[in-house]
Amino acid sequence: MLTSRNNPTIKHIRALRQRKERESSGTFWIEGIRIVAEALQLGAAIEHIVVAPDQLHSAFGQQLVEQARAQGCTVIEVSAEVFASLSSKEGPQGLGAVVRQHWSALADISTTGLGWIALNAVSDPGNLGTILRTSDAVGASGVMLIGATTDPFDPGTVRASMGALFSQRLIRTTWAEFADWKAHSGWSVVGAADSASCDYQDYVYPQPLIVLMGSEREGLSLEQQALCDAMVSIPMVGRSDSLNLAVATSVLVYEVFNQQRRRGQP
Amino acid sequence: MLTSRNNPTIKHIRALRQRKERESSGTFWIEGIRIVAEALQLGAAIEHIVVAPDQLHSAFGQQLVEQARAQGCTVIEVSAEVFASLSSKEGPQGLGAVVRQHWSALADISTTGLGWIALNAVSDPGNLGTILRTSDAVGASGVMLIGATTDPFDPGTVRASMGALFSQRLIRTTWAEFADWKAHSGWSVVGAADSASCDYQDYVYPQPLIVLMGSEREGLSLEQQALCDAMVSIPMVGRSDSLNLAVATSVLVYEVFNQQRRRGQP
Repeated sequence: MLTSRNNPTIKHIRALRQRKERESSGTFWIEGIRIVAEALQLGAAIEHIVVAPDQLHSAFGQQLVEQARAQGCTVIEVSAEVFASLSSKEGPQGLGAVVRQHWSALADISTTGLGWIALNAVSDPGNLGTILRTSDAVGASGVMLIGATTDPFDPGTVRASMGALFSQRLIRTTWAEFADWKAHSGWSVVGAADSASCDYQDYVYPQPLIVLMGSEREGLSLEQQALCDAMVSIPMVGRSDSLNLAVATSVLVYEVFNQQRRRGQP
Repeated sequence: MLTSRNNPTIKHIRALRQRKERESSGTFWIEGIRIVAEALQLGAAIEHIVVAPDQLHSAFGQQLVEQARAQGCTVIEVSAEVFASLSSKEGPQGLGAVVRQHWSALADISTTGLGWIALNAVSDPGNLGTILRTSDAVGASGVMLIGATTDPFDPGTVRASMGALFSQRLIRTTWAEFADWKAHSGWSVVGAADSASCDYQDYVYPQPLIVLMGSEREGLSLEQQALCDAMVSIPMVGRSDSLNLAVATSVLVYEVFNQQRRRGQP
C-alpha cells in the first residue's frame, strides 16, 4: 500500500488536475463509485484503479475493484491520507481511476444515428458535460470541439456528463479543418443564432446532421454562419437575448430528435 | 471613501456571502457592470451602490452610478482594496450593489402568460439560475421553490440567470402549502418523470400552467406525482436515464411555449 503523498505515481495523478498534464499524458482522473462503474461498464481504457481499502466500504465498490483486476487493470492501493490528496470531493469514497482519453478523427465519422453536435470555442466545462449528456440522450454520436475550447476531460465536464463522456465520441479540430472537411464530406451543417430568421421548428432537419453552436459569449461569427446549410433561431419573448448554451443546444437537438421520431427513423 | 475592510457596512456586505446573512437581512450582493445595469433597468430595489472609483474606468459604469444616485440610492465609495475584499471575481470591475430580495406569495399569482415553473428541492444554484433564464425566455411569470432548495440569491444563481433573476418572480413554499393551494386555486399542474408513460409531445398543455420538476437526485416522489393533473416524460434513447435538470425543464417548457405559439396565444 502506498502511504506517501510524494510517491511519483501519486504525484503524477495529482498533477492531472492541470489540463497541461492531462494533455501531455493523454489521461485523466475520475473518482467515485458511480463514475468508475460507468467507465468499466462502457469499456473505457482504464490505466490504473486507485483504491483506499480503509475508505471503500461499499460491497459494490469492492466488486468493481475485483472486476477491474480481472480485466487486467493495475490496482494501486493507497492509504486514506494519500487518497485524500488526490480527491477533490468532501467525503471521498476511496475509489478512483486514471483513464486514457479517447479521441476520434473527423475522417472516421460514420453516418448512422442523429449525427453530431459541433461546438465552436465552448468555454464552460459544465456546459460541455451537460451537452454530452443530452447528446447521449438523443442518440447523437458525439461532440466536435472546434478551436480553443474547454477540456472535455476537465473534472467539471466529467461530473456534468454523468457518464455520457464514456458513451460519446469526441473530435477536436480547427475551424479551417472543419470547413475543409464539410466542403468534401457532404454532411449538412445547421447553425443556431438569435438573429436567424428561420424558426428552429420550421426547418426540416436532414439526417445525419451536424448541429453547430457558437461560444457562450459570442455565438457564431458571420463567416461561421456562412458555412452552414441553414441558420435557425430559437424564439424568445422575455427580456434576455439568449439562452444558456447547454439549454439552447438541447432545445435544438430535441427538435431534430422529435422530427426524426415522427418520421419513424431509428 | 471607505478604506477599511473592517468598516461595519463593509463587514455586513462581505457577510452576504452566507445564505444565513442574506436571509436575515433580506438582501443580496451583486457585482459587475452588466448585472448592476440589469438591476437598475428592471427596477430592482437597490439599497446601496458600492463603487471603487480607482477601478471603475468604464464610462457606462460611471453613468450607472450617477443614474443610481439620481434615483436616490446611497452610493458608497470604497478603495480598490476594500472592493477586492467584497469581490469574488478575478479582475473586479469596481461596481457592485446590495439589492433587496423580492418574493411573491402564492395567493398573489396572476393567470396571465405561460404560467410558472415549480421546482421541488432544487439543489444546484447554476441549474436554478439557468431555469430562471429559460423562464424569462418563454414568457413564464417566475419560479416557485418548494421545500428545502438552494437560495435564488446565491452568487451562482445570480450569475447563471444573466439578469433574469430581476425579471422573474419568486415564490417559496412548502409541499403541504403548495398542495393545499393547488386544491383550491384550480391551476393545472403537469409534472415530469422518466417513468411517465405520456410523451411530453403528446400532451396538450392548458394555459396557464404550472410545470413541476423534481430534484436533481430524486425527481418527484409518488405522492408528488399523484398531485399532478398529468405526468409526462421526455424520451431518451441513450444509456443515461436522465437529463440535466435545467435541460429537462427547458425542453419541456419550450414544448409548452411552442404549443402556445401554434395556438396563436400571447
